[in-house]
Amino acid sequence: MSPTLSTVILGASGYTGAELLRFLHHHPHISIHALTGDSQAGQPFGDVFPHMQHLGLPDLVHLEDVDMTGVDLVFCCLPHGTTQDIIAALPAHVRVVDLSADFRLFDTNTYATWYGHPHKAPALQVSAVYGLSELYRESIKDARLIANPGCYPTSSLMPLTPLLSAGILSPDAIIIDSKSGVTGAGRSAKRNLIYCEISEGMSAYGVGNHRHMPEIEQELSRAAQKDVRINFTPHLIPMRRGMLTTIYARLHEGFTLSDARQQLQQRYQHEPFVHVLPEGQAPSTHHVRGSNHCHINLFAGRNDGDIILVSAIDNLVKGASGQAIQNMNIMFGFPEHTAIDMVAMFP
Amino acid sequence: MSPTLSTVILGASGYTGAELLRFLHHHPHISIHALTGDSQAGQPFGDVFPHMQHLGLPDLVHLEDVDMTGVDLVFCCLPHGTTQDIIAALPAHVRVVDLSADFRLFDTNTYATWYGHPHKAPALQVSAVYGLSELYRESIKDARLIANPGCYPTSSLMPLTPLLSAGILSPDAIIIDSKSGVTGAGRSAKRNLIYCEISEGMSAYGVGNHRHMPEIEQELSRAAQKDVRINFTPHLIPMRRGMLTTIYARLHEGFTLSDARQQLQQRYQHEPFVHVLPEGQAPSTHHVRGSNHCHINLFAGRNDGDIILVSAIDNLVKGASGQAIQNMNIMFGFPEHTAIDMVAMFP
Amino acid sequence: MSPTLSTVILGASGYTGAELLRFLHHHPHISIHALTGDSQAGQPFGDVFPHMQHLGLPDLVHLEDVDMTGVDLVFCCLPHGTTQDIIAALPAHVRVVDLSADFRLFDTNTYATWYGHPHKAPALQVSAVYGLSELYRESIKDARLIANPGCYPTSSLMPLTPLLSAGILSPDAIIIDSKSGVTGAGRSAKRNLIYCEISEGMSAYGVGNHRHMPEIEQELSRAAQKDVRINFTPHLIPMRRGMLTTIYARLHEGFTLSDARQQLQQRYQHEPFVHVLPEGQAPSTHHVRGSNHCHINLFAGRNDGDIILVSAIDNLVKGASGQAIQNMNIMFGFPEHTAIDMVAMFP
Amino acid sequence: MSPTLSTVILGASGYTGAELLRFLHHHPHISIHALTGDSQAGQPFGDVFPHMQHLGLPDLVHLEDVDMTGVDLVFCCLPHGTTQDIIAALPAHVRVVDLSADFRLFDTNTYATWYGHPHKAPALQVSAVYGLSELYRESIKDARLIANPGCYPTSSLMPLTPLLSAGILSPDAIIIDSKSGVTGAGRSAKRNLIYCEISEGMSAYGVGNHRHMPEIEQELSRAAQKDVRINFTPHLIPMRRGMLTTIYARLHEGFTLSDARQQLQQRYQHEPFVHVLPEGQAPSTHHVRGSNHCHINLFAGRNDGDIILVSAIDNLVKGASGQAIQNMNIMFGFPEHTAIDMVAMFP
Repeated sequence: MSPTLSTVILGASGYTGAELLRFLHHHPHISIHALTGDSQAGQPFGDVFPHMQHLGLPDLVHLEDVDMTGVDLVFCCLPHGTTQDIIAALPAHVRVVDLSADFRLFDTNTYATWYGHPHKAPALQVSAVYGLSELYRESIKDARLIANPGCYPTSSLMPLTPLLSAGILSPDAIIIDSKSGVTGAGRSAKRNLIYCEISEGMSAYGVGNHRHMPEIEQELSRAAQKDVRINFTPHLIPMRRGMLTTIYARLHEGFTLSDARQQLQQRYQHEPFVHVLPEGQAPSTHHVRGSNHCHINLFAGRNDGDIILVSAIDNLVKGASGQAIQNMNIMFGFPEHTAIDMVAMFP
Repeated sequence: MSPTLSTVILGASGYTGAELLRFLHHHPHISIHALTGDSQAGQPFGDVFPHMQHLGLPDLVHLEDVDMTGVDLVFCCLPHGTTQDIIAALPAHVRVVDLSADFRLFDTNTYATWYGHPHKAPALQVSAVYGLSELYRESIKDARLIANPGCYPTSSLMPLTPLLSAGILSPDAIIIDSKSGVTGAGRSAKRNLIYCEISEGMSAYGVGNHRHMPEIEQELSRAAQKDVRINFTPHLIPMRRGMLTTIYARLHEGFTLSDARQQLQQRYQHEPFVHVLPEGQAPSTHHVRGSNHCHINLFAGRNDGDIILVSAIDNLVKGASGQAIQNMNIMFGFPEHTAIDMVAMFP
Repeated sequence: MSPTLSTVILGASGYTGAELLRFLHHHPHISIHALTGDSQAGQPFGDVFPHMQHLGLPDLVHLEDVDMTGVDLVFCCLPHGTTQDIIAALPAHVRVVDLSADFRLFDTNTYATWYGHPHKAPALQVSAVYGLSELYRESIKDARLIANPGCYPTSSLMPLTPLLSAGILSPDAIIIDSKSGVTGAGRSAKRNLIYCEISEGMSAYGVGNHRHMPEIEQELSRAAQKDVRINFTPHLIPMRRGMLTTIYARLHEGFTLSDARQQLQQRYQHEPFVHVLPEGQAPSTHHVRGSNHCHINLFAGRNDGDIILVSAIDNLVKGASGQAIQNMNIMFGFPEHTAIDMVAMFP
Repeated sequence: MSPTLSTVILGASGYTGAELLRFLHHHPHISIHALTGDSQAGQPFGDVFPHMQHLGLPDLVHLEDVDMTGVDLVFCCLPHGTTQDIIAALPAHVRVVDLSADFRLFDTNTYATWYGHPHKAPALQVSAVYGLSELYRESIKDARLIANPGCYPTSSLMPLTPLLSAGILSPDAIIIDSKSGVTGAGRSAKRNLIYCEISEGMSAYGVGNHRHMPEIEQELSRAAQKDVRINFTPHLIPMRRGMLTTIYARLHEGFTLSDARQQLQQRYQHEPFVHVLPEGQAPSTHHVRGSNHCHINLFAGRNDGDIILVSAIDNLVKGASGQAIQNMNIMFGFPEHTAIDMVAMFP
């Protein structure tokens, strides 16, 4: 019989916070000690998310009003740039899964370049573990601080890292064209996010300079054991959830598409959440919506050696809150799929 | 320790079949014995619904190839009009939850009028129990055949029946204006259902003569203990799931909106799936999406005694497959919320 | 050869302003003298609406920087409550089509009740003409100030007023259930309007107390020549444009559905923008999208004498900017369909 | 004063047929002689497209019932593969704009390879002119048969051909990642196109082998004056209209992004429908919806010499019917923008 973990969610009034609670409702060993939301502190949680009003969750409070005594784990769902200070101030006994980008770049110079200010907690950064569950499971077990991966990196790394590690794929000409649902932009009121500006149309954004690029490059470089630079373009698609990533790359001489397929199949055959689809079947965000699953497939490109990889995840789940719970399960020794083994919601 | 129920889903290649499986995946006491789908018999289930390919479900088969020995329960997800014969032919030991409209009208003359042909299993009809879980829980326990309610009736009856039974509402001027998601129209390939004909536009349909009208009237008449005739207009909304029903009615003299609110609150205070919202908060299909919950609220109309009731459900869940499992739980003595206590998926 | 009108649009950075310009681009006798937009003054118009960057429109300016000398017509697209003062300050030679609600209620007491503050330009109110083009064409011709109707009133009045004027319909039991696209809520950044909160779900709002109710009642009362009170519920639908209104009413004794149909057909047979559909065909917002057309149909209700009317318009066009241009055409003697005879954009 | 052209639309019951009529309604020199639609012959056109019921269009007829005497132009909107025979049988005096793919590949061997059967009208093929209006304007003027370009090719060729012709771009590493609205799949009833299978999700399709690939390669090869092979992946996006194409390529040594920008600006500065956006502004399908415009921009890639091009069109307009009318205008000497100078419909 596992004991019950006492958890706190910082920034619970956003979408990743709500998504954590949707799953944690099914976790037999979790209790919610506090939910913070500075601008809405004092409000019943059901006012902020009416679909959870029957759950008896605590009201939103200010971070400084949370008593961290006895708290085992904090999920940090705060905006990028605000998190380093806050996590640095948490008591040492509290373990942390941070869903922001603040601890994902191990080189603090790279961080400073892309975020425009120096890293505020470089000492903590050293001990942070990048939380791509399938890749870093062993280090996650004992980590105090997990830097939960971004959605673009998750969808890119799942198909790419095994092929780079195995030396099957050339790291030199990787192009990543990603398409994201709108929840990736968060819950704040911005004119460019209102329904009438998004529905039934699409565009690229951050072309050539999106902040997830160095995160992807860091991990591809680790897998390839050399510096990797990629072209990466994110697009905003009129759908709330889902991320489809199309990757153009080249096989190293002597390797075939079939080698690549075998490598991915073998790598993921025992993983509960990663699935290499049958040959020819295109991954679709429809089939992972609301679930922690990742669908992958490989296709021949136009010229010999060209390969096209496609992956589909739910950006809010495997790309954020689902993977955060997966990491928590790993950290505390629960079966890894606990509370996140939902089937995708289709249609 | 409950034993494991052996279940069969007839017509598993449609949306209600898939939705049953999404929930049953979380039921600790259910095994799937067979899935039928005549036009796609022989196909792996994952070809029909790729989001379930990792579940190890049985291939689709023809109904006549299913061995019913040892089967405890059949969910029948077949089209209206085809079901009476098929259920009549099932062995007597099999209990049935029928999601079609075939056994919902107790008066076989009414059935013949609205469906254009005589009822094919009038003897069975006599024993069928109308499966609105909250209303007929006691009869459901022992029923062999449950006529699972339609989505329009479910969304209309939840707010109306307690007020009619209590004599608070006049049964004489009830107008029901319902708005449904597109899954209500099923999964068949029809030109009027393709994306480009539905997205970002809406219309009414079946104005004045939708087949759910007599079903609603039957149940309102039972509640009011007199013949009730309603005006009912269904509308098709560009959303996959969800049903919002707006009801215009009049209070009996001497009763107030507050009386009606109290009556509904009292009636549903111990129900896990029905929630009367705080005063002034409009029910939204967003907040019940993917869940078995029903949200209800009451508002004052323009003139004294006018009342406006609004309810929200997910048409595929509380309006179909979720309620079917709720009924199964009641029939077999499982806790009523087993496998269907998911939080709504918002956003 | 008509002379060219010099026009100004106040509040051109919102959706109704853009929609005016979409049509005016095709008007042979209009020039755009100035576009105002206080919070974005100084910006090129193409920054605010990139789809118009090739049109050579003037930059946005502050209202006080517009020289009104030589200006023939002002379209006023400002928020409700701000418009009375501004229009009162315009020079007398300028004619005005006001798209706000500020001059629609002729009884300034009713205005004060619903808007919570006294009317600021009661003298101007007296001379304002309610701009439902088909109904008040004669008065519009000579008006200086047109109060352009709201979208809910337009969609309700088109089917109802001819039947009330003719004494065919009872004014005593009218229920109006309206469904609106999201552009009706404007272009401002509000959390409840962001894509993820709107897409694929719906709710009612302002139940029992929406500010368009007195406007509808005012005009129904004029048509019926007695005080009319209605029940009216607006709903927000996941579509950018479109409004579908379903009306439940009762025929006066001695009249039939067929009488009502004949009355509407006769009334609208020479109107270029109002169409009574063939019997049985349900109006759809798809078929009026982007156009100034209004589709209407009538259906039998459940009981003798019950009638269900359905209308469809594009809330931004016939419900706002299209009708504004129609009124301008009437005011200045252009053919009424000039620049607004676009076919609906389907799909 | 231009004379009136007598035109026929073959296959008028599909989306491209309707779109032609939406524009032709505004053309002062066009009359519609006949509309064909084999499966719906005999029906009033307003039954097939209710938004056009007020236009007085002719009923749908069988192709063989059309008298081609006096007909000047036929628009052919028939399915791929059926068109070669039909056009070959048209009388010689009739000029043709063919919106299918049947005459787009000049090498009939390439056609046979990709379409799986020999070309049925190779003699006609020789005289066909590829109808990318901006590129082949001169040949279009005198052509009898225009092969109107596909939507994917149009969106790809607009940004690429000027840069390849000028020798600025390397033709060796071009990757085209395209995202299309659902109207591209036509109006037929297919299960994979119904609303519930498309809305709020997306996938790639035809990865590595879509039939528009050889069409794009043919035109890129003409521009580069050498054989070009590309990687091309189409994706289906939950929007009715719109196509966004993201292109990854490399500049030839010695050229910069700024050279490329200048080249495109210069090339398109006098074109009414092609616009190079201000630096940094991402093209969006929202801003071309319903219009014949094409928006283009260029961005620096990650490494020196990498370039990312993005284009946006409406697949039904510049990618089909709008360009067809543009070609007609060129063929018959009308001003090129006649009837297709609509502003995009935003929102």
